[in-house]
Amino acid sequence: MEQKVRTFVKQYHLLEEGDRIVLGLSGGMDSMCLLFLLLQWRKERKLEILAVHVDHQIRGEAARKDAAFVEQICKEKNVEYRLFREDVEGIAKKKKLSVEEAGREIRRELFQSEQKRWGGSKIALAHHRNDHAETLLFHLARGCGLKGLGGIAPVEGQIIRPLLCLERREIEAYVKQRQIPYREDATNQDLAYARNRIRRQILPELETVNEKALLHFWETSQRAKKAWAFLEKEADRWYRLCRKKEEGRLLLKEEEYRKIPEELREYVLQKFLWEGAGKRKDITAVHIGLLEELWGKQSGRKHCLPYRLDALRTPEGIELYPAEKEEGKRPGEEKPPAVQMRIFEKQEEVTIFPQNPYTKWFDYDKIESNVKIRHREAGDYLTIDRAGGRQKLKQYFINEKIPQRQRDAIWLAADGHHILWVIGYRQNQGYQVTDRTKRILEIKVDGGNHNGRAD
Amino acid sequence: MEQKVRTFVKQYHLLEEGDRIVLGLSGGMDSMCLLFLLLQWRKERKLEILAVHVDHQIRGEAARKDAAFVEQICKEKNVEYRLFREDVEGIAKKKKLSVEEAGREIRRELFQSEQKRWGGSKIALAHHRNDHAETLLFHLARGCGLKGLGGIAPVEGQIIRPLLCLERREIEAYVKQRQIPYREDATNQDLAYARNRIRRQILPELETVNEKALLHFWETSQRAKKAWAFLEKEADRWYRLCRKKEEGRLLLKEEEYRKIPEELREYVLQKFLWEGAGKRKDITAVHIGLLEELWGKQSGRKHCLPYRLDALRTPEGIELYPAEKEEGKRPGEEKPPAVQMRIFEKQEEVTIFPQNPYTKWFDYDKIESNVKIRHREAGDYLTIDRAGGRQKLKQYFINEKIPQRQRDAIWLAADGHHILWVIGYRQNQGYQVTDRTKRILEIKVDGGNHNGRAD
Repeated sequence: MEQKVRTFVKQYHLLEEGDRIVLGLSGGMDSMCLLFLLLQWRKERKLEILAVHVDHQIRGEAARKDAAFVEQICKEKNVEYRLFREDVEGIAKKKKLSVEEAGREIRRELFQSEQKRWGGSKIALAHHRNDHAETLLFHLARGCGLKGLGGIAPVEGQIIRPLLCLERREIEAYVKQRQIPYREDATNQDLAYARNRIRRQILPELETVNEKALLHFWETSQRAKKAWAFLEKEADRWYRLCRKKEEGRLLLKEEEYRKIPEELREYVLQKFLWEGAGKRKDITAVHIGLLEELWGKQSGRKHCLPYRLDALRTPEGIELYPAEKEEGKRPGEEKPPAVQMRIFEKQEEVTIFPQNPYTKWFDYDKIESNVKIRHREAGDYLTIDRAGGRQKLKQYFINEKIPQRQRDAIWLAADGHHILWVIGYRQNQGYQVTDRTKRILEIKVDGGNHNGRAD
Repeated sequence: MEQKVRTFVKQYHLLEEGDRIVLGLSGGMDSMCLLFLLLQWRKERKLEILAVHVDHQIRGEAARKDAAFVEQICKEKNVEYRLFREDVEGIAKKKKLSVEEAGREIRRELFQSEQKRWGGSKIALAHHRNDHAETLLFHLARGCGLKGLGGIAPVEGQIIRPLLCLERREIEAYVKQRQIPYREDATNQDLAYARNRIRRQILPELETVNEKALLHFWETSQRAKKAWAFLEKEADRWYRLCRKKEEGRLLLKEEEYRKIPEELREYVLQKFLWEGAGKRKDITAVHIGLLEELWGKQSGRKHCLPYRLDALRTPEGIELYPAEKEEGKRPGEEKPPAVQMRIFEKQEEVTIFPQNPYTKWFDYDKIESNVKIRHREAGDYLTIDRAGGRQKLKQYFINEKIPQRQRDAIWLAADGHHILWVIGYRQNQGYQVTDRTKRILEIKVDGGNHNGRAD
């Protein structure tokens, strides 16, 4: 077993002589195993170790005992250590994360800050093959690209995972044989956590399907990772050939784009969006799909994208630029409400629509031009029945008994002269989300709080 | 639901007007759903349908009822049909397949032969998203490359799978709503089948982790498939630049090979092996690894590969050619035994060694030159202890009291003058498979039956 880890450490260059290692030490079997391995190599490799333990304040007495146990072991073994207490549940609630996710995030932040403070060269974590397979399955279930198929990596920035070559049972056997002390983690037993279901129910089942399942997961992951690296590299090369930046606009040149192998195009579009938005988060397959669609459209067609980005089809290609200010603003008037728009794919079973009156959903594919937030203009109309019957906006105001003086102040979400939404009043039937809807446009006015009414 | 299938059929060009469709019809929910959809389209698309039902002779009375049910429905709906009875268990035993695998193989062969006989243009199967996810997980557990991550495809040769856009529960709902009759398949309940475990235990668990798991599996699959197609295409282009064929030898040119992006090399080596062997089966990552290793070796080094193929390092690159006849054959003597060699990675827990005296395992990495099957030569020796102590082969024969006249007739597996195996007698301690063994060379003499003895 030790030999296996040594080979793995060498293969991925995980340790160098003189490394100063921050070790995440929960006191559980895996991290204790890693501690003992590092201790064994401490002298021969001139390693220095700082153990960092985080009490999540979830398990009360048990957690205090964990901390005491870690402290005692570190003293015995002459290892520097730090103990932290964090209100994980509170933070989870605040950040709207699961307790498990919040715990992971908090630990990671602590390890990194301790690494900086202590001048550590690496952060060692005790993940193993079961964790890898679990992550892979979790990614698969949640949806992922090739990159996500890579699971967890032996090296990730300054984080190293020397036990990623071992299955849990190998660690178990080693810890038993060497009589390495450890404490059971009670939260591991809780099947409510999605990951625990994978860990404790799905993986053991998969191992009955094929006893080498964990190894095979690993091997396939490594292949997917390699493929992803290649595609990324190729897409990058193409992207650099296609892009052009000028006067705050980012252009993807059509002539060059057409030469890109079909399989790489979505990767190139993704890079384009990443650069245009200046962010990677929330750029999804839907937005890539919108750009793909634009190639087939006439010059002048536009799509709204996240981060108030607009994509415009031009004779040269596709341009990305910050969305124009909402129109309809007149001198002396109040500012238009802050509006967030989001486009996403409709899940088959969507039956619950937003209840908040200032968050509305529309069938994105029924929108013909580009949605603008503005005041009323001559020619505005609503659709009032499924057959497409029209009503003038003016008539609507009259029917609703909205006084003349207020009408100019009401905000509208408009698709040309077709009104999607009289904000704060009614939503147009013509854009309703139906069984056939594929993509939904969500419009939120002032974070869903503004009533849009001028009264 | 119907609309979804129509869109899917259009997207993948599954049906054309006038198609003659062989439908695999078990009588279960999925295939009955597909039958009814096809019937609905029969007129508008001018389809002709031939239903083929296979009774696996496993479920006795229930199976006869299935066949009767299919017959009745087909008569009612005016659909041509054929019923077959096959001894799946017997065939499984003979072919050393699981009953499920054998069933699949038999069905596929029957569908194809019926397609030919009837002049069908397509074979329609009722696989859905759950089957896709099941196959994907099965591939992952069993080990696969990018290609395997693709799961099952909407089109595969002449096979089409129009329901691959649906989850089982959608089919269930539709069948219920339309009151489509079907029969429960009792074998589906049997958890002993690996695939049934995935189907009935693992997938439902994964759906509790993420309710869109099946959709996400599909999407990730499609990405992996696209990536694989690209890598294949690129590898193919490179392979054509690198390969050269002359006088029964296939050469991979070093100069060109070195230019190949690192991530593509294994794909190129695989193509090289496929072409050299004239087969794809049994060419594994191990053999690709052997070729990779050869690049670092001196000219003149050789590796044995499956299908009696030798790989030779030359100054120009790597050559593949049919293995030379085993040496040591002298005029008038009996033919050397048929020998099969196979190299594979040692699984961590291998504890069971072949019990058959004519099948032996050796530590492949301890072999220095190239294994030959021959008779004795001057200078032959054995290793008799772990320290590497030697014994002359002659001395061994004397100790074993093997008469002089027999010694020349005994077959040996030799690594230079180092004897791995005195076939039919003893195996050399020096090549023993140990904890450190990574790759195993298996030698089978006459399919494991020949005793190698000349007496």
